[in-house]
Amino acid sequence: MGKVIGLRCITCGRIYPPDTGIFTCPECGPYNGTLEVIYDYEGLKKRLNRENWVVPSLPGHYRYIHLLPFEDTNLISPLEVGNTPLIKSHTLEQKYKSKGIYLKDDTRNATLSYKDRASSIALIKAREEGSKGIIVASTGNAASSMAGFGASVGMPVHVLVPKSIPEGKLLQLLLFKANVVMIDGIYDTCFDISIKVAKETGLYLRSTAVNPYLSEGKKTSAFEIAEQLRYNLPDYVFVPVGDGCIIESVYKGFKELKLLGLTNTVPRIIGVQAKNSAPLLKAFENNSQKIEFIENPETVADSISVGIPRDGIKALKAVRDSDGFFVGVSDEEILFAIRELAEDTGLFVEPAAAAAFAGFKRSLKERRIPVNSTSVILLTGNGLKDPKAIRNIVKKDVPVLSSDDLDGVIKAIER
Amino acid sequence: MGKVIGLRCITCGRIYPPDTGIFTCPECGPYNGTLEVIYDYEGLKKRLNRENWVVPSLPGHYRYIHLLPFEDTNLISPLEVGNTPLIKSHTLEQKYKSKGIYLKDDTRNATLSYKDRASSIALIKAREEGSKGIIVASTGNAASSMAGFGASVGMPVHVLVPKSIPEGKLLQLLLFKANVVMIDGIYDTCFDISIKVAKETGLYLRSTAVNPYLSEGKKTSAFEIAEQLRYNLPDYVFVPVGDGCIIESVYKGFKELKLLGLTNTVPRIIGVQAKNSAPLLKAFENNSQKIEFIENPETVADSISVGIPRDGIKALKAVRDSDGFFVGVSDEEILFAIRELAEDTGLFVEPAAAAAFAGFKRSLKERRIPVNSTSVILLTGNGLKDPKAIRNIVKKDVPVLSSDDLDGVIKAIER
Repeated sequence: MGKVIGLRCITCGRIYPPDTGIFTCPECGPYNGTLEVIYDYEGLKKRLNRENWVVPSLPGHYRYIHLLPFEDTNLISPLEVGNTPLIKSHTLEQKYKSKGIYLKDDTRNATLSYKDRASSIALIKAREEGSKGIIVASTGNAASSMAGFGASVGMPVHVLVPKSIPEGKLLQLLLFKANVVMIDGIYDTCFDISIKVAKETGLYLRSTAVNPYLSEGKKTSAFEIAEQLRYNLPDYVFVPVGDGCIIESVYKGFKELKLLGLTNTVPRIIGVQAKNSAPLLKAFENNSQKIEFIENPETVADSISVGIPRDGIKALKAVRDSDGFFVGVSDEEILFAIRELAEDTGLFVEPAAAAAFAGFKRSLKERRIPVNSTSVILLTGNGLKDPKAIRNIVKKDVPVLSSDDLDGVIKAIER
Repeated sequence: MGKVIGLRCITCGRIYPPDTGIFTCPECGPYNGTLEVIYDYEGLKKRLNRENWVVPSLPGHYRYIHLLPFEDTNLISPLEVGNTPLIKSHTLEQKYKSKGIYLKDDTRNATLSYKDRASSIALIKAREEGSKGIIVASTGNAASSMAGFGASVGMPVHVLVPKSIPEGKLLQLLLFKANVVMIDGIYDTCFDISIKVAKETGLYLRSTAVNPYLSEGKKTSAFEIAEQLRYNLPDYVFVPVGDGCIIESVYKGFKELKLLGLTNTVPRIIGVQAKNSAPLLKAFENNSQKIEFIENPETVADSISVGIPRDGIKALKAVRDSDGFFVGVSDEEILFAIRELAEDTGLFVEPAAAAAFAGFKRSLKERRIPVNSTSVILLTGNGLKDPKAIRNIVKKDVPVLSSDDLDGVIKAIER
């Protein structure tokens, strides 16, 4: 393993060796005892600088291999991950009097979501262990992502998803030949079952939070943002939050850059939750360490419809340590944000991704962030993954004209 | 305009200045008189070499600006185009005893199709001219692409599409706020109307073939392939063919590299058509210069469902000049290829893209290409753009289990 020193419990700080197969701290339990991968930062700091910390000969996000938990590049999937555009939108900057609005377009990963960053690393770890297959509980994106990466190297993938999974994600799963089991329940239930099934079957577990290696893939967007902005980090980074894994990973990425002396600051990390699926927002507003779970999370943004945020502790810590905050947005704001992004930027995103933009707008409106600041907004999934959500917000009355009605066509064009 | 010398008629060879606003040769007519953009190749050859022909500070495919028909980088859309992965699939190579199978994944463009390469350049040209809007006839991808790029800079986009347009493409169009007019007819009819409407309204015409600048965007995948393979070009490039614009553009790209002395060869360009929508295949097999149009093209691959291939002359020339050939595939082969690509590589493509892979397989089977050769297969659009096509080929019997039925879940996982 070389550069990885161990897995540190987020609560008690105990450090476990990386190769014992344990995924959460036995002392603190599966919820409080999530682990984080720690590297020999002192050693890395001595060796790495802005000129050599990236390995340009490796594709996509694997070029950050010095800060990734694997060595054998033969285990990398041929599907490319990361290296996604950071789009500066003049239109939005003018509209919101902002010094910089950057949209990190992770809808352009291999399976059209941010989750590819994690699946790519999970695949490597499963292959390292010689696993016979992988199991994952998911709202949809993590599963379709894992299924695609499994397919790319012939690794069987089993998934547990709520039966309400959006159509695009299900089609991806089925086409990638995943073994799909739908659960008549919500995502939180699928998650609990996945832990039990992994134990019974010996399948490699790619459910979030309980597998610390997923964060390692997910943190790479922070590295890309730093590179793309030539180390002039933004003031704020807006992240949609369900389980909390993406937000804590993004924070970890920025923190590691600072630890290595590659940057001087860490942006304020802003968590955006859907109002009726917002246990972390509530804990943050109550200034509490305790996260109260929600039994029936409800939002149009299926990817962040989570009542039991499995990475809640890390997520709260990321927001607090970075001097950020949580903000809640309504389904109406989310749907409006989908349209606004499409119409003003040409980006076509799923509800959870739009939530991040809606959170940015609300933060500005409530003056929680100043005008003339710089923000990165993480766009985590493509709109075609959830056609139903889009179908509900576009106009329906498209004229159908006869091919010999040129006058009618010109009238329709000029209307 | 600087580096562009003029627009040359593909049939009579007359050269027109680039700034007269004419789009096809008045002498040879709109079908035979399509134009191609020619540069000062002699001058460029003196100035450019492998070290300096790419401008790395520009994003995506704009980095080939020395061979693109614009100068003002302020006109570039913030949406990034090109720079798509070239995926080497070991799985497929073993299966087909091939020395190299490279999948050019253009499903990962901004609007999930190859057409972004052309729309990005059309947008620049329309802005150069101060156009009040853009009109395009399309089977779907060109329209949704143009709509996205229009939205990114506030340029109005009007589209004419057949009413059979796949759902994903329509959703993109509507969300990007394009002015959509459906025609009760096939794509070929939409095309004819678009020419008339452009003339009547003064809108910038982004319909294929009659606008020579579209090829300039589309040729950039050839540049990327050359760079990605470190100038060791493949033996074959497989391209799905409807109008013929992509295939002639790819050929033009490779030819230009050779003209500039950046490469020594041009790959054989293989055109793949759907069997019941194959006027170019027929002309090729009959060794004829004359292309017989088809009144009712029929294929599951909507993007190449074209009876009147508007760039047919250039396409035939590209295939003949490169010593390539045309191959026809059935809808069954196309649908099977969608599944095979997904299951073996984790790539999720639309029917037209899968057609290129099906054509590769058929060519191998018929020994028109040898085993142990190298091929690039152009994947031109994402599968989520046409969910209906996918829905028809995936299995339907997904088990839905109760959340307290752990035994049932484990049984389903291990089945």
